[in-house]
Amino acid sequence: MAHGRFVSFEGIDGSGKSTHVARLAKELEGRGREVVLVRDPGSTRLSEEIRALLLDPENSEMARECELLLYEAARAQLVAEVIRPALERGAWVLTDRFFDSTTAYQGGGRAIDADFIRRANELGSLGVAPDLTLVFDLPVEEATRRRGEEPDRIEREGNAFAETVRKAYLALAEAEGERVRVIDASGTRGRTFALVEDAISARFGEECA
Amino acid sequence: MAHGRFVSFEGIDGSGKSTHVARLAKELEGRGREVVLVRDPGSTRLSEEIRALLLDPENSEMARECELLLYEAARAQLVAEVIRPALERGAWVLTDRFFDSTTAYQGGGRAIDADFIRRANELGSLGVAPDLTLVFDLPVEEATRRRGEEPDRIEREGNAFAETVRKAYLALAEAEGERVRVIDASGTRGRTFALVEDAISARFGEECA
Repeated sequence: MAHGRFVSFEGIDGSGKSTHVARLAKELEGRGREVVLVRDPGSTRLSEEIRALLLDPENSEMARECELLLYEAARAQLVAEVIRPALERGAWVLTDRFFDSTTAYQGGGRAIDADFIRRANELGSLGVAPDLTLVFDLPVEEATRRRGEEPDRIEREGNAFAETVRKAYLALAEAEGERVRVIDASGTRGRTFALVEDAISARFGEECA
Repeated sequence: MAHGRFVSFEGIDGSGKSTHVARLAKELEGRGREVVLVRDPGSTRLSEEIRALLLDPENSEMARECELLLYEAARAQLVAEVIRPALERGAWVLTDRFFDSTTAYQGGGRAIDADFIRRANELGSLGVAPDLTLVFDLPVEEATRRRGEEPDRIEREGNAFAETVRKAYLALAEAEGERVRVIDASGTRGRTFALVEDAISARFGEECA
């Protein structure tokens, strides 16, 4: 099949990934590319309904395997309905989170068996993997400071959890260095975005010129 | 762990499984057993919310992989919250549908790759399998005749779909004859229930006396 470019943005909440994925989308559109910007979970009607279940603080009794499979279900809908068709017509797809979030949050944070997660990620992504994954990294305390909003169910679990997730992301970058690049997000927005552009150019070469 | 008895009731809609699972529950309770009667998807607050998504005729754009993973998510919650604890304390657990429904409906009916389904079923059931599965079998036309209610999204797909599902169930019984028993559900309720009791006695022996 024809294949666009698929880039996922990862990191703990407050790492700045959502800001930078939106900025990169604008930048690429300015260069005449077709860009599809999504968030996972979300970005389809059904995936947003599943997202609402996942983030509802009322659902505190949710079993960790149920949580994992709901993320995968939302992702499957997003891939089938939006991501795969966009890649097939040659678009750039930028996503705020993808399956590495599951590995880092459900694997690192909640300690579900790594093989279980690997298999679930295979199912939920329908075998569609990012060409490049950018992990926005900064100290947990700094990320907490940058967030100003009402915490949702997952955010409430606090800094110890975020620290475990951060480490899981860094371990991923070490294990899959070809695909997963760490972006130092501790500096200014401008400096961080320059690092994003460097990573895009390094991976896709002249296509981003 | 201590282990109760886990029996799943399967079959196309209108096959009578829901009637007979309720009757068996009463029968066993009358003999002083602790019985936990559930339906899959459903039987926990969260699983019922997921069930509502699955059966809503509005959700016609649902990707088949999303559908499959939602069934597995609902099942994981049911197993973690109800089935596994009940089996651990030695209860009888009777369920109206379990993972064989996924194999028959999503595999047979929707033609998703069998290996994908097998892996999804492993995840969603948390490795908890029925000791005995009763497949209620009867001709599709007879099942249609017995149903009188407003069809939901899945029921609307009609008899050709039900025929494929029926065949998938019979293939399962052939492949896993030790666990999966076919109950001829074409006769009267009384005759069908006698077949259920025979199957229970044959599998669990004196425990059902």
